[in-house]
Amino acid sequence: MTQLLRSWVESANSPDTDFPLNNLPYGAFRIGGGDLHAGVAIGDRILEVTALEQAGLLDLPENGVFARGTWNDFMALGEGVWASFRNHLTKALSEGASQQSDLETHLVAMADATLEMPFTVTEFTDFYAGRHHAFNVGSLFRDPANALPPNWLHIPIGYNGRASSVVVSGTDITRPIGQMKSPDMDMPVFEASKRFDLELEMGAIVGTPSKGRVGVQEADDMIFGYVLLNDWSARDIQAWEYQPLGPFQSKATATTISPWIVTKAALEPFRASTPPREKELLPYLTEPGPMLYDIDLEVGLAPEGKSETNLSRTNYNVMYYSAAQQLAHHTTSGCPMRVGDLLGSGTISGPEKGNRGSLLELSWAGKEPLILDTGETRSFLEDGDTLTLRGRAIGDGYKIGFGECAGTLRPARALD
Amino acid sequence: MTQLLRSWVESANSPDTDFPLNNLPYGAFRIGGGDLHAGVAIGDRILEVTALEQAGLLDLPENGVFARGTWNDFMALGEGVWASFRNHLTKALSEGASQQSDLETHLVAMADATLEMPFTVTEFTDFYAGRHHAFNVGSLFRDPANALPPNWLHIPIGYNGRASSVVVSGTDITRPIGQMKSPDMDMPVFEASKRFDLELEMGAIVGTPSKGRVGVQEADDMIFGYVLLNDWSARDIQAWEYQPLGPFQSKATATTISPWIVTKAALEPFRASTPPREKELLPYLTEPGPMLYDIDLEVGLAPEGKSETNLSRTNYNVMYYSAAQQLAHHTTSGCPMRVGDLLGSGTISGPEKGNRGSLLELSWAGKEPLILDTGETRSFLEDGDTLTLRGRAIGDGYKIGFGECAGTLRPARALD
Repeated sequence: MTQLLRSWVESANSPDTDFPLNNLPYGAFRIGGGDLHAGVAIGDRILEVTALEQAGLLDLPENGVFARGTWNDFMALGEGVWASFRNHLTKALSEGASQQSDLETHLVAMADATLEMPFTVTEFTDFYAGRHHAFNVGSLFRDPANALPPNWLHIPIGYNGRASSVVVSGTDITRPIGQMKSPDMDMPVFEASKRFDLELEMGAIVGTPSKGRVGVQEADDMIFGYVLLNDWSARDIQAWEYQPLGPFQSKATATTISPWIVTKAALEPFRASTPPREKELLPYLTEPGPMLYDIDLEVGLAPEGKSETNLSRTNYNVMYYSAAQQLAHHTTSGCPMRVGDLLGSGTISGPEKGNRGSLLELSWAGKEPLILDTGETRSFLEDGDTLTLRGRAIGDGYKIGFGECAGTLRPARALD
Repeated sequence: MTQLLRSWVESANSPDTDFPLNNLPYGAFRIGGGDLHAGVAIGDRILEVTALEQAGLLDLPENGVFARGTWNDFMALGEGVWASFRNHLTKALSEGASQQSDLETHLVAMADATLEMPFTVTEFTDFYAGRHHAFNVGSLFRDPANALPPNWLHIPIGYNGRASSVVVSGTDITRPIGQMKSPDMDMPVFEASKRFDLELEMGAIVGTPSKGRVGVQEADDMIFGYVLLNDWSARDIQAWEYQPLGPFQSKATATTISPWIVTKAALEPFRASTPPREKELLPYLTEPGPMLYDIDLEVGLAPEGKSETNLSRTNYNVMYYSAAQQLAHHTTSGCPMRVGDLLGSGTISGPEKGNRGSLLELSWAGKEPLILDTGETRSFLEDGDTLTLRGRAIGDGYKIGFGECAGTLRPARALD
């Protein structure tokens, strides 16, 4: 495992920072009401990449790559440029680098910045690749004796989500209205969801497009980086709508992502293998090497005006399928993948109750309400609750952090 | 019902043309290998709208609206501009119009043009709103006694599809490879689909964006126009993958659309009501007026090098839910809709066997193979088959045609 790389940005050398020189995650920000700029996090600063490009301090094969302030155009330049750009920044930000004086004028305090979506989501696909989550949900929604669907150990099950509803951390979430019907009702009702929930996930971002089928190694190569992802879910809407064609409006209110794209390069020392296969996979899904990552994850819930309670601690390395396997499966039909496609991992629940990644599982569908540190109870989310996901890969004296993936639930809009 | 509007473009006055002055559908085309240009079909000609804009002959609130050659930027100008632009073209193309000499130089022969995607598909949603189709599929895949899912008469069921796989008529389709397992197999296999099928649908294009929930009338107002749509489907992949989260790779190979966007304005005389409700709808889904259209639809299949057999004739007016109802439902969760979103109606099957919109239904899942006029039989599609959908609203001495929505099936790529 590599050690802390020291930077002339002093705050990047603290063992507590999420953003040491080893990380260099990619984001987008505004100062005040200004234009959207691309930036790279380093300690408690943001390196203004859009300004660096304008000043002629970046060596890129095209002009205006960062003019939009997002990372899609950079991703489209391909793997070679991803590597040379990161090497350039790593050297220029290293302790003793000659570029210090050039770059110093292009650092802003992260505390002064408003973080925005780091990339434009082209299409969003959500998966269902957590073994414990699938078992728990299968037990609750269907039959505990046959909790895992028959295809689950063979296919990284996924469904298409809604790109237009993906938002950046800090965006308020409005409790949705929807159609629902519990088994005891004669007719469905149209009202505010009473079972609004989170899903703790990782998101993988496709940086290289494809036409036609790709293998697992090629799929891994296509991934640009990762974010934390909360796929807000209305369980009561989901239960009534999801048969036979899958979740639709229950998942379309919002999906929140963390504001920094942590690159695959930064996560390289933390690669982890998927668990042993319970059934042998078809060859097109076998991994040539470890393609998960050892990333500690946690969820906190703070009721309005109150302190936060930890709900769950888990790790991305418990997933049964990696993002590379999911992406390879995604292309089997010939489905073209494009720069900016986002793949949600599926809810990340570990084996124990304290490792579960949704309130559905944590409160066992409301049968075992959680007691928060503040004394309140929760089966599902209440208006004013702020949910915060955090994730960190822990190195030798440093951390690769993702920043926070947070959102506050606001009351449903009144019905007309 | 309005009558034929006569144009100085003589071919537009023929009772046989799909593109009289009453229609004026919007497309995109190239001549030879040239740039993509926006155009309007009139008789056997295309009016070069990109060139008209460059020549200063259009009165639009912005410059460069047609510079990309697609209709997204035009749609974004809003309903008022949709109407004034159409009025302007209708007058300028009318018999005796003073603009004839200006416009004549900007007409090209449709036969010389290659038609391309008329708009960039932002996101694609497919629905399941045909009563007869849902009953047939439910009978085949589940239980004939309970064919219709319990939510079907209450919700216009939809699922998110894949925008990246939407292609224009004339694009070859490669038979997909995928994971499948029939009940008699111990383990799934990964091979070429043997049950590759069509789905006869209409597509509605969202022209006005929304944030937050919209009602059915507002949803109808947001729709810019309609296309024919064939949602190619691999039934064997679908059967194994679709539980519990819906169709995924079975629907991601390709979705073909016809090349001309027929505007809502052109279809106005053909509005039709949805059939009587079998169960009362919740108020948010009730229609303030007729929002389906009376459009005759047909499907033809031509084996490679052979003549075409008609497979089916039906009408869009048999659908249980309109696109406006589907779009209103789509926004209930707060899901933002954007310019260029495409909504598939769901397979349009009428009550009789000869009205069915998929081979799954026509051959009753292969149990009753069709005999083509050429003597061959078909349960599902064979390599080399060309499928062609056609659609026309029939007026008094004129037709509002959609052009063809065609694709030829090519063999699967070899497995590595």
